[in-house]
Amino acid sequence: MSSVELLGFIAGALTTSSTIPQLVRIFRLKSAYEISMPFTILLLAGLSLWLVYGLYLSLTPVIVWNAIGTGCVAMLLVAKLRYGRRRP
Amino acid sequence: MSSVELLGFIAGALTTSSTIPQLVRIFRLKSAYEISMPFTILLLAGLSLWLVYGLYLSLTPVIVWNAIGTGCVAMLLVAKLRYGRRRP
Repeated sequence: MSSVELLGFIAGALTTSSTIPQLVRIFRLKSAYEISMPFTILLLAGLSLWLVYGLYLSLTPVIVWNAIGTGCVAMLLVAKLRYGRRRP
Repeated sequence: MSSVELLGFIAGALTTSSTIPQLVRIFRLKSAYEISMPFTILLLAGLSLWLVYGLYLSLTPVIVWNAIGTGCVAMLLVAKLRYGRRRP
């Protein structure tokens, strides 16, 4: 792996893994009132398109992390739909 | 601009602009209790590294959107520090 590919893997590991503590917090608090619905939907759409971009240019780190990221943000959307309706 | 560059610009516009409604929501509610601090810090570190990755490979959409994204998430960190301490 080249050093720039390694950099992309570290960058992606950080941005993608960032959603995990956020998911844990929401599911622990059983509240997603403060999470913005447009945030969740725009992020999900954007990560899906980055995935397509990575596939077009065969950028391995872009593909791997945006695939995982799309899954994590889909779970955030589920959490928002389940816990986001009313103030805790 | 090539069609794949255009795709990258749209993808970046979506992911980067997603933080704006989240910021608006936090500042309007004056509460960031549900926002995870590790989420904010990992995302800030990751977006900064994606910016370096984009600069290395001269990927214009990666550079532009991660520069703006880093700024937006820095503001989210400010919001978390200001409003995140206690349950509203």
